[in-house]
Amino acid sequence: MESSKNKDNLKIILDDSSDLSLNQIRRLLNKMSASEIAHALESSPPTQRTLLFSLLKTEEEGDVLFELGEEIQQDLVSKLSNEELTEAVKELELDEIVDILQNLPEERMKKILSKMSLVDRKRIEMGLIYPDNTAGGLLNTDVISVRPNNSIEVVISYLRDQGELPENTDKIFVVNDDNEYLGELSISSIITSNPLRIVKEIMESDISPLKTDQDDKEVAILFERNDLISSPVIDENNKLIGRITIDDVVDVIREDADQNLLGMAGVAEDTFAPPGRAARSRVFWLTMNLITAFIASSTINLFQDVLDKIVYLAILMPIVASMGGVAATQTLTIVLRGLTLEQINTSNIRWLFKRELAVSILNGIVLSLLVGFITYAWFQETILSILISCALIINLISSVIAGILVPLILRRFNQDPAIGGSVVVTTVTDVVGFLSFLGLATIYLI
Amino acid sequence: MESSKNKDNLKIILDDSSDLSLNQIRRLLNKMSASEIAHALESSPPTQRTLLFSLLKTEEEGDVLFELGEEIQQDLVSKLSNEELTEAVKELELDEIVDILQNLPEERMKKILSKMSLVDRKRIEMGLIYPDNTAGGLLNTDVISVRPNNSIEVVISYLRDQGELPENTDKIFVVNDDNEYLGELSISSIITSNPLRIVKEIMESDISPLKTDQDDKEVAILFERNDLISSPVIDENNKLIGRITIDDVVDVIREDADQNLLGMAGVAEDTFAPPGRAARSRVFWLTMNLITAFIASSTINLFQDVLDKIVYLAILMPIVASMGGVAATQTLTIVLRGLTLEQINTSNIRWLFKRELAVSILNGIVLSLLVGFITYAWFQETILSILISCALIINLISSVIAGILVPLILRRFNQDPAIGGSVVVTTVTDVVGFLSFLGLATIYLI
Repeated sequence: MESSKNKDNLKIILDDSSDLSLNQIRRLLNKMSASEIAHALESSPPTQRTLLFSLLKTEEEGDVLFELGEEIQQDLVSKLSNEELTEAVKELELDEIVDILQNLPEERMKKILSKMSLVDRKRIEMGLIYPDNTAGGLLNTDVISVRPNNSIEVVISYLRDQGELPENTDKIFVVNDDNEYLGELSISSIITSNPLRIVKEIMESDISPLKTDQDDKEVAILFERNDLISSPVIDENNKLIGRITIDDVVDVIREDADQNLLGMAGVAEDTFAPPGRAARSRVFWLTMNLITAFIASSTINLFQDVLDKIVYLAILMPIVASMGGVAATQTLTIVLRGLTLEQINTSNIRWLFKRELAVSILNGIVLSLLVGFITYAWFQETILSILISCALIINLISSVIAGILVPLILRRFNQDPAIGGSVVVTTVTDVVGFLSFLGLATIYLI
Repeated sequence: MESSKNKDNLKIILDDSSDLSLNQIRRLLNKMSASEIAHALESSPPTQRTLLFSLLKTEEEGDVLFELGEEIQQDLVSKLSNEELTEAVKELELDEIVDILQNLPEERMKKILSKMSLVDRKRIEMGLIYPDNTAGGLLNTDVISVRPNNSIEVVISYLRDQGELPENTDKIFVVNDDNEYLGELSISSIITSNPLRIVKEIMESDISPLKTDQDDKEVAILFERNDLISSPVIDENNKLIGRITIDDVVDVIREDADQNLLGMAGVAEDTFAPPGRAARSRVFWLTMNLITAFIASSTINLFQDVLDKIVYLAILMPIVASMGGVAATQTLTIVLRGLTLEQINTSNIRWLFKRELAVSILNGIVLSLLVGFITYAWFQETILSILISCALIINLISSVIAGILVPLILRRFNQDPAIGGSVVVTTVTDVVGFLSFLGLATIYLI
């Protein structure tokens, strides 16, 4: 754990590194854990980050690389020579090595692998088979397994022989001679059971293990819902392949949440990405918005005549559009959250739609009165005030339809609804907002 | 863990509950775990939810209540009589009871407490002291502690006497006769050490325990960064009060992420909240947006003359405003994420500001060329095209200033930047967008 003393080290490095000699920084780094160093690197602009990383001892580089987010990890790895990288990862667990190597260009990976022992290479290559976002991609191979007919006494003396158990070992697994998964045995039941009892009497066998091809978000939900620390992973032949531990699941939960938040704004970059990369990550979204903004403008263009005659309309029309955009984003957010938590399905979507409609009508009444009142106070035009109120209600109803349908449709086409959603829904509400307000004005004001 | 059979039960309940007899539903519920039932309740509209909950056995109600999110938990608790509630929580751990009781109105809580034994009441009252969002609010009191001079053999036989260890027990704690915290002893070191060794030789004492008043987000970051399963909590006198376990921390991480996502859209409700509550949770935000939209409109109002003369301006002005809004939201999101992950501080905020400025200029060049080109293609007006390009660049730069300063200022005043942020930044970009475009037009087009 980060002691308060080490937290100070972190502050000193981040705040004053310009005033410290390289040797002073190196001494501070030596006192910090790999995860603290990783956090310091993630909180540093690129130049400072490269400098800090270069001050690490080679044996520490691997641990720090593993703790880093993908983008920064790849950046720093790309600055190491093949020899340095091989040296850095040498002492890591095999699944940690897989985590670092899997993002390398194929050529480079082959070169690094060729420097390893045949056994290591085989195991790493096995780990590289599973896609990143599956249970297989999350698993560690550091499982301890015992046989069903062992006594607890034998199990304890076997564990004692191991010297140290792998981190986050809250249970070990029971397999038959063919390494087929039979059940699990919690460390706490081992320690509290009579040593003469037999594994198969105590093991839990009614719990289904994870499959290598399960989606990582599904794994996260299972861990969360069942308060798991670790869970076994089997392949399609029921053979025990490894286990997934809560620390990796927490990373999935954090990344998942990050993705929703960043996705909705159309950014995909680490906090201190260099300007060129940050600009590239955002320009797509801005360009999409430019195109949709022109679509909204071409709606306005249909009403040149009425705008030419009544300048007030130009002043008020952004209000209707903007209110629809906010309401649609609210509905979209509720649907996105419900989809992420797997709460929304065919049985309740209809109820949700009706609820959103009711919300938009309830809030539509309040807000249209308010907008009508303010408009009247401003321009003293009764019809104009009624028109803007009606347009607002129409646009709030359109915001519900867009906010619910757009994410569901994107999801149906296997698109991440967090990423495409908000630009599409606000385009709908912009267009409907301008259409309804200026359309009603054309009918009733000229 | 949720077996695939139980997952089917969940689907059947959610999809077809209208076609099933109450007895059939009750049988399905009997096969599900408390967390699965809680998920089913969270995925159900209010009427169906109340029905499902009423079908549970009393002894199951407490576990299910504990697994539910705060809002739904309170809803269901408010429908139970004091006797039913006392009965439902009777079998829960004390900290689980605290979790459920702490949201009750004071009167009601007193009545429930009065039905409990004096010992239980004292301990629950102690748990109720700590605010919800602190380490104290997260802690469980189910700690196992041993003395530094015990042998491992004694520790093991003590643990064996416990029968079963509390969930998520990866370590036990070492305290002196005054219950002052000395260190921790991992279960895996107990199991792998020579039974004749003494606790104080093996315990880890260089790890600082959590304090009861530490912020829960800080606790989450410490758990995440150090891959913890559990951590001791001490009071200001260094006495061991309890421990925090990863399952509760995962809930904090999820809620925290939820809060950022929902906060930015100005919604704060569970997915299937009834319409009245959902409307109330959103109307504040919509009203704020209405006010700021009128502020933006009054900016446009300053330019009635030029709008009256050149109707194209009304058509194009939403584009400049909307682009600024998207760019500002991107910057805001990056800053929010950096603040949540504690990456941003005084030492790097200046770099971040310069980076954002560089991003806005880089993207500003690309987008202003694009917007100028499309405008020219549409209206064949050279000056108009140049003006809109310049206004866009001005607004993108203003979006950086707003996107960085607004969350930092809100944070300084102890406001959640996720919640106030996006309405404020888009107001800035709307106003600057209209001002710059219409202002430039006034100067150069008439």
